[in-house]
Amino acid sequence: MKRGFFITVEGGEGAGKTSAIDAILEQVKARGYDVLSTREPGGIPIAEQIRSVVLDRNNTAMDPRTEALLYAAARRQHLAEKVIPALEAGKVVVCDRFIDSSLAYQGYARELGMDEVFAINRFAIGGWMPDLTVFMDVRPEIGLARIRVDQGREVNRLDLESMTFHNKVREGYLQILRQFPERVVRVDAERELDKVLEDIGQMLSQKLPRRV
Amino acid sequence: MKRGFFITVEGGEGAGKTSAIDAILEQVKARGYDVLSTREPGGIPIAEQIRSVVLDRNNTAMDPRTEALLYAAARRQHLAEKVIPALEAGKVVVCDRFIDSSLAYQGYARELGMDEVFAINRFAIGGWMPDLTVFMDVRPEIGLARIRVDQGREVNRLDLESMTFHNKVREGYLQILRQFPERVVRVDAERELDKVLEDIGQMLSQKLPRRV
Repeated sequence: MKRGFFITVEGGEGAGKTSAIDAILEQVKARGYDVLSTREPGGIPIAEQIRSVVLDRNNTAMDPRTEALLYAAARRQHLAEKVIPALEAGKVVVCDRFIDSSLAYQGYARELGMDEVFAINRFAIGGWMPDLTVFMDVRPEIGLARIRVDQGREVNRLDLESMTFHNKVREGYLQILRQFPERVVRVDAERELDKVLEDIGQMLSQKLPRRV
Repeated sequence: MKRGFFITVEGGEGAGKTSAIDAILEQVKARGYDVLSTREPGGIPIAEQIRSVVLDRNNTAMDPRTEALLYAAARRQHLAEKVIPALEAGKVVVCDRFIDSSLAYQGYARELGMDEVFAINRFAIGGWMPDLTVFMDVRPEIGLARIRVDQGREVNRLDLESMTFHNKVREGYLQILRQFPERVVRVDAERELDKVLEDIGQMLSQKLPRRV
């Protein structure tokens, strides 16, 4: 029997995922659940090693299919060592980015095909699909402007991609939303933070299982 | 239009793949072909980085699915940077281990399922399946004894696996042989080297395209 509850938070660069996650954690804890907050590679040494290969700025020759397989590999290890044990212990797990990032970034924006990227991620995930995915939707011109203002954050290889790419990422997420309407909920993340967080609170009231 | 000719050499530990490859290279060159001899990760820096994660003795927590995805990722990068350009230039490429190693080791012996491991490797390979696969068949008790005698070779993590595991690897290869009878040719590698190499020569005479 499946235990726990698996929430993922998705969106483009600067969509406000961190604020969303903070709000989710607060509300989940207030309802009395044990909670694990994580993101890939999540301090799992093997997943960290894999991710460092992906993000290495020197690896300019990386083939898009290699990259997609590496993300799937890091996903598997983080899932196996950290997420599955927490779900099996009955916790609510909140994960910053998961399979939909690969579908939107590699599958759609890099044009590898969402079905093909889904195939390798299905292998990585086994039966552990998220129960709820919060999609923080923001237009790239808004999201990337937020990042530039935030001086404290390191800009990585993906941030340096063109606006065209980020627009395709958003289109990919919108396609995922249509494809998985039961699992994925869109939040209009361009509004004031208070209203965004209010939406998230209402969503959790509807979706979280009623038990402590 | 497809150019070149792609040969892979497969088999368990100590099957004599190196001798087989030397013989293939000699004969292919004697027929006037340009030839590339390689093996994953093949000096491709990104593939080398990935492989070093797989073979790191400290990574004892590695999940079998993570390992299979990493092999597929290293395979993709080596294929994209080294094998495909050579085939497109019309060369004969001889590769020491390829997709069938993953099917036999991860798919069959580690029980991930040959179909599932084939799915992620189909993504890695795209359309570039080998034209000919030489399966050097030796019982594990013979093959592993050969390795122990050969003092010069470093024993890696896979060599340390149990005899049961190596027997399952062989069963996996035999299943691949039945599944892909057009592509895979079995060589009885327990006989004297001269006879083994004679078999390989005859096989190449039949299988290599007649052109220079």
